[in-house]
Amino acid sequence: MKRYTKNWLEELLVTLFMEAGASREVSETTSSILIEGDLLGHHTHGVKLANGYLRDLKSGHACGDHNAMTSKEISSVAALVDGHYILGPYLVQKALERSADAARESGIGIVTIKRSHHIACLASYLQPFVEQGLMPIIMTSDPAVKSVAPYGGVSPVYTPNPIAMGIPSRVQPIMMDVSMSTVTNGSVGKAHAEKTKMAHPVILTNTGVASDDPADFFSDPQGSILPLGGQEFGHKGFAMGLMVEALTSALGGFGRKDAPTGWGASVTVMVIDPTLFSGQSAFLDETDHLIEACLSSKPVNPQHPVRMPGQAGLSRRDKYLEQGIPLPDDVVTELQKAIDDSSLKGRY
Amino acid sequence: MKRYTKNWLEELLVTLFMEAGASREVSETTSSILIEGDLLGHHTHGVKLANGYLRDLKSGHACGDHNAMTSKEISSVAALVDGHYILGPYLVQKALERSADAARESGIGIVTIKRSHHIACLASYLQPFVEQGLMPIIMTSDPAVKSVAPYGGVSPVYTPNPIAMGIPSRVQPIMMDVSMSTVTNGSVGKAHAEKTKMAHPVILTNTGVASDDPADFFSDPQGSILPLGGQEFGHKGFAMGLMVEALTSALGGFGRKDAPTGWGASVTVMVIDPTLFSGQSAFLDETDHLIEACLSSKPVNPQHPVRMPGQAGLSRRDKYLEQGIPLPDDVVTELQKAIDDSSLKGRY
Repeated sequence: MKRYTKNWLEELLVTLFMEAGASREVSETTSSILIEGDLLGHHTHGVKLANGYLRDLKSGHACGDHNAMTSKEISSVAALVDGHYILGPYLVQKALERSADAARESGIGIVTIKRSHHIACLASYLQPFVEQGLMPIIMTSDPAVKSVAPYGGVSPVYTPNPIAMGIPSRVQPIMMDVSMSTVTNGSVGKAHAEKTKMAHPVILTNTGVASDDPADFFSDPQGSILPLGGQEFGHKGFAMGLMVEALTSALGGFGRKDAPTGWGASVTVMVIDPTLFSGQSAFLDETDHLIEACLSSKPVNPQHPVRMPGQAGLSRRDKYLEQGIPLPDDVVTELQKAIDDSSLKGRY
Repeated sequence: MKRYTKNWLEELLVTLFMEAGASREVSETTSSILIEGDLLGHHTHGVKLANGYLRDLKSGHACGDHNAMTSKEISSVAALVDGHYILGPYLVQKALERSADAARESGIGIVTIKRSHHIACLASYLQPFVEQGLMPIIMTSDPAVKSVAPYGGVSPVYTPNPIAMGIPSRVQPIMMDVSMSTVTNGSVGKAHAEKTKMAHPVILTNTGVASDDPADFFSDPQGSILPLGGQEFGHKGFAMGLMVEALTSALGGFGRKDAPTGWGASVTVMVIDPTLFSGQSAFLDETDHLIEACLSSKPVNPQHPVRMPGQAGLSRRDKYLEQGIPLPDDVVTELQKAIDDSSLKGRY
């Protein structure tokens, strides 16, 4: 597997995005967030997405002009942004920065974004804010997609609806990013493309039987992905999925009722500054204590001690920054397609 | 099973709490929240708890004086409350009211409470705020208890850490209340007391084997409750459990590091006013649409159409208000103990 440096990839992606009409601001933020996905090891939600983003920029569904963003200022701590389908990384980054300013001033900030384009890997945004001692929270749903059925039903209605959060600690920051379904759309699509089975029976067939065959998702009528908790405790994943729907699409006032068809996202970000609550040291003392207690929990398998959310990604990130980012074949293929569709064709 | 009216229970509980030294304000709110638990069908977290609350009031661990509460005003939208172990329902109710005021003004309000006594059933608080068109969110951890192990470990470190949220809709409000573990401490304790098995293998033995025997939780060394997601996807429940720890104990600056021993809770509440974001009708149009779509999802079992979170509880509530609240035997037994320890002995 070939390795690529962050700088090399960044220069390449910025060139591609700008050639497709995106402004420098949008191109740079989007490139950096995509590469961050691969740095953390989330290759389905990293550079691989660039080709789709470029396609949507060229077709006009995605917007590359950061000036198109409009914002309703609700108060000093809250805003509603209309993203006009600007590439999601730019919108999310701006929303986090604004929320962080509000959090430093007032304890908390919240921005909800309607009509964002796809926002890539949620974990990719967290680290810079955590390093400032803040707790960033991101949640998203895609009102154009139906892949998860309500608990007890077989007709899919909503999406995996991930929640990501960063938690500062002196031991190691926690960076979590989990969907409220058993698995993501991406992993089902990947298994289907590779003609492999899922590791667990996470698909519900259109007749209500659990299956590990991704083909049962792509049937007609469509199957669905089981909510987090599966067949026994899926009412919990379902409830959490509804929470994310309400805090994203409903709060933004644009969602499934509007039947959008293009790739998009409803997003809500919050940032909390713990320094203004209990103070930095009481907060860090508590998170450090919790993390130490988790790490020293006797492991089920002595070969695999407990890992905190984000731990593997962050150590991968350090290694990849030093040794280069190894991109899997499917990512390189997508990237090559993007290059071949540009003026850079033949030069990479 | 005998049925009791809300008024009769309220009068009884208020008398008991006041006789144990609680102020009228604390007694009334606590009684009302406990009864609300039974009205919604959550009998493990309703009137049954009164006896324990009274015991802690009498021993001095719980506080019944609402004037003991102190509050650090962080901004117009955020506060940190030191609950001084006042009975939790009073503290949570006040925090929600304050957050609701902030939400109506600024879009969002957040209050974190350290050193609360137990807060009963989270779902019990939601309805009045949802009926005002608001989205209340409550999350809690108990730093004095260790019952859930980090994913991959067997030594329990933290608690089930529930999240509750109310979502307004014209069709029916959504009222969710779910723990980030497979099951609650209460349900394991109940099965153990009744010498029955759990419905699913949700206990992890102290050697790391899944079990449906609650005795495997009460072993030495102690077993644990599997996080939401179980053995396959427990990393997600673990991550969400950590999120709740950070937003409650760490944010309040008082938690496991302080090794508290008495019954207590770290709590964070947030309230969001959707009217200030997208406006009431866009918000309700979206939640109505989502709920209709869920309810009309083809059911796995035609005998059991999809139910929304809170739906069963709310219809139970209506019936119980009309016909009286049927209290299970174990609840009546606890209540009787409380009565027998009071001046009301022999009169009920």
